[in-house]
Amino acid sequence: MSDESQELGITESKSHKPGEWYAEVVQKADLADYAPMGGFIVTKPRGYALWESIQDALDGWFKETGVDNVYFPMFIPESFLEREKDIVEGFDPEVAWVTQGGHDELEERLAVRPTSESIIAPFMADWTRSHRDLPLRINQWCSVVRWEATETKPFFRTKEFMWQEGHTAHATNEGAWEEVWTRLDQYERVYEDVLAIPVLRGKKPEHDKFPGADTTTTVEALMPDGKSVQGATSHNLGQSFAEAFDITYVDEDEEERTAYTTSWGLSWRALGALIMTHSDDQGLVLPPTIAPTQVVVVPIWQEDTKEDVLEYSETIVDDLEEAGFRVELDDRDERNPGFKFNEHELNGVPLRLEIGPYEVEDEEVTLVHRPDNEEAVEDRDGIVDAVDEHLETIYDKLYEAAEENLQENVREADSAEEIMGTIGKHGGYVKVPWCGDQACEEAIKEKVAAEIVMQPLEEQGGQTAGVPKAPEDDDAECAVCGDDADDLAYFAKSY
Amino acid sequence: MSDESQELGITESKSHKPGEWYAEVVQKADLADYAPMGGFIVTKPRGYALWESIQDALDGWFKETGVDNVYFPMFIPESFLEREKDIVEGFDPEVAWVTQGGHDELEERLAVRPTSESIIAPFMADWTRSHRDLPLRINQWCSVVRWEATETKPFFRTKEFMWQEGHTAHATNEGAWEEVWTRLDQYERVYEDVLAIPVLRGKKPEHDKFPGADTTTTVEALMPDGKSVQGATSHNLGQSFAEAFDITYVDEDEEERTAYTTSWGLSWRALGALIMTHSDDQGLVLPPTIAPTQVVVVPIWQEDTKEDVLEYSETIVDDLEEAGFRVELDDRDERNPGFKFNEHELNGVPLRLEIGPYEVEDEEVTLVHRPDNEEAVEDRDGIVDAVDEHLETIYDKLYEAAEENLQENVREADSAEEIMGTIGKHGGYVKVPWCGDQACEEAIKEKVAAEIVMQPLEEQGGQTAGVPKAPEDDDAECAVCGDDADDLAYFAKSY
Repeated sequence: MSDESQELGITESKSHKPGEWYAEVVQKADLADYAPMGGFIVTKPRGYALWESIQDALDGWFKETGVDNVYFPMFIPESFLEREKDIVEGFDPEVAWVTQGGHDELEERLAVRPTSESIIAPFMADWTRSHRDLPLRINQWCSVVRWEATETKPFFRTKEFMWQEGHTAHATNEGAWEEVWTRLDQYERVYEDVLAIPVLRGKKPEHDKFPGADTTTTVEALMPDGKSVQGATSHNLGQSFAEAFDITYVDEDEEERTAYTTSWGLSWRALGALIMTHSDDQGLVLPPTIAPTQVVVVPIWQEDTKEDVLEYSETIVDDLEEAGFRVELDDRDERNPGFKFNEHELNGVPLRLEIGPYEVEDEEVTLVHRPDNEEAVEDRDGIVDAVDEHLETIYDKLYEAAEENLQENVREADSAEEIMGTIGKHGGYVKVPWCGDQACEEAIKEKVAAEIVMQPLEEQGGQTAGVPKAPEDDDAECAVCGDDADDLAYFAKSY
Repeated sequence: MSDESQELGITESKSHKPGEWYAEVVQKADLADYAPMGGFIVTKPRGYALWESIQDALDGWFKETGVDNVYFPMFIPESFLEREKDIVEGFDPEVAWVTQGGHDELEERLAVRPTSESIIAPFMADWTRSHRDLPLRINQWCSVVRWEATETKPFFRTKEFMWQEGHTAHATNEGAWEEVWTRLDQYERVYEDVLAIPVLRGKKPEHDKFPGADTTTTVEALMPDGKSVQGATSHNLGQSFAEAFDITYVDEDEEERTAYTTSWGLSWRALGALIMTHSDDQGLVLPPTIAPTQVVVVPIWQEDTKEDVLEYSETIVDDLEEAGFRVELDDRDERNPGFKFNEHELNGVPLRLEIGPYEVEDEEVTLVHRPDNEEAVEDRDGIVDAVDEHLETIYDKLYEAAEENLQENVREADSAEEIMGTIGKHGGYVKVPWCGDQACEEAIKEKVAAEIVMQPLEEQGGQTAGVPKAPEDDDAECAVCGDDADDLAYFAKSY
């Protein structure tokens, strides 16, 4: 390796310094840069392409299931945010305030949206007249700003972040619940099928719900460092927003009724989870489902073999492109193959095809998997099918490794000491019977910074209504205080 | 018509009160609502779908021609904006200022981006090291805010508006010019092929360029009320931003050189032009190229014919869907056909298929064009091809009407009086020889609020370098002051 490729590579170790390693992967794989203002990042082409892939998948599913995109103003008058105080006492959002327009002071401060319920709800009230207007389902892709003073971690913790926020209104609570599950299913699907990350589904504890929600459901993903990421949330808002903002409708019997609303969102934190889950000390690792370049073809030549090798390589690239793969030919003259291998590893290209004079002679192709460098030799003839199979294998490997990590890291405990000991030693989730009292969570949180990230839910005839699963043992006792425990809870450290 | 459909319909007249008529079409065709803060709008599903169609078309062309999407922060520190003062004296943007974050005053005010050159340029400087990094082409789809105190006109004049902004760096001025034309071609294409609006291409006068630009090129569209809309702009920024922000690169000969940059943008004003150009006193008119619903099938039944009519209609809808048309079956029980006709006219569905018992019996379909109500009867058998042809005819009608309006409204004039008289009487463009002095424009502008919206450009071997076209007569005199005139200029009132 040349000096240049040393500089190019990742120097930190994922297992020893996960924070530094993560920051280095993000920057060296050209996903994002830090902006001049603390808390903000610049999303570079490779990073934004990943976000676009997530958008494409989710947006398609949203539209197939009755959601229309809209766009609401990025500013919310302070008095609109105040109305949320009717719902949530002490609601005091940490937001960025616009106080001047041009050279003038504004009469009323405008918040840069931290989320849009308070400006969307009044319009939903206006648009919802008759039962025929329901369900009403709208979504916007935008960025939001939350003025939290924390260290910047690209895609995980930034003052401005990109997300989608869906908002719906329904005639019945059943309709609202169906909506909540439809969206949670789609979030699960995007994690599992697009990002190759298995997730756990459940609800947040009562004291950790979205302000004003009846129930906040979540998909949680376990990172290799043992912390849980809240992957996306889907809230049943019940009638609280509908009551505060007069979202009512005239039913078939001519009676005026109050609607039920939901909201649901997934942010670019999903990219953070993606990078963190699969990548390694050589750099970014991407499942083929989302990789902007799925296959890179690296021709290896000497002067006298260059023409043959390049020609052979080009026909393979053509075949793969025609078959719909995202493929790149790296025929740069000024870089040697070793440099190229390192660079494509760093950038997370799932499959590398190496083609030298021997491959040309034998009408074969050498394939190398990212991340485990598994090598295979395949016939030129069947290369399209072979590439398809290898990409599938690579996806499976990534998914299975993440699944194994998850399976191995759900443990049980019988006491506060055991919860803390297990989390301290292994990280991951600790599943315990819980009495439902926030104080029992606080006792753990204060000592080891772990909290209840999720409660698994009871299935009720194929459809749950947000009822938490009970411990198997009818006489279960809360692992922390020893009182009767009707619930199960998953403790973990979290992002 | 029922009372309800009267209320549904447009009450203002396009020819008599274009402003009121426009506002009514936007609201009644459900494109947008006014937000509670003056200057802001809420873009509703039907309006946003139109913007998504424009995005899809342009974004695809951008990517085919080497552009990557990115995302930069929505805030720009005041000191970054100040750096633009090196380029443009007296630059003092009318922007929204964030001065508080959470409960604290910020040390430095943050502007909500009015455009992003000043935050993007320093990163371009960082990313541009070698000639191999050029050309660098990035784009973002976002909203921007300009705090101008004008009356709100949805999509035309709003404090926050959606757009895309492209930013590129090149090794040579020729490379920058090529970029400028590539983007102007794409803007022309989106207007002509997607929106069915012919445009004029040209440059802005020197005194009306984008601050810091060498040349601002524009596509201009003539509205039926005789005013010109600046449809999109593509700027050759020369080396001014590159010099101010140190965008340099090491060339093949190891010398450090300053890059050339461009920027180019199209906003949702394109939607304003779309609505204004084609719509009429019955409501929205959309070319089939962009209409979210291209074809609506309205079955017309009595109790005894309902089953047959519906069944027949459904098979037609299936065939059209399968052929890739965006088609809707309006089988609502609670609305009569007249109400439905009016509603779909209002919403701008280009082609209506009416199907009653006679159509079923004769195995035919009745087709009605929007906007001119031209009717045709076609055989059921060839309905897919017939629909395709009718949609093409509708697009052609709309384009040709707009083209005719444009052709008829480019006039010439020999004196200031004639310019003003012509614009006062007909609106449209007045093409005159011009000496190049801003004072001659001011003389007209003060009296009739018309300005030079565009100067046509000279072709130079298939590629222009932004040189304005000269009058045909070598001895031409400026229509305003009578001095020698080397340039041609188009006066018009503008949006």
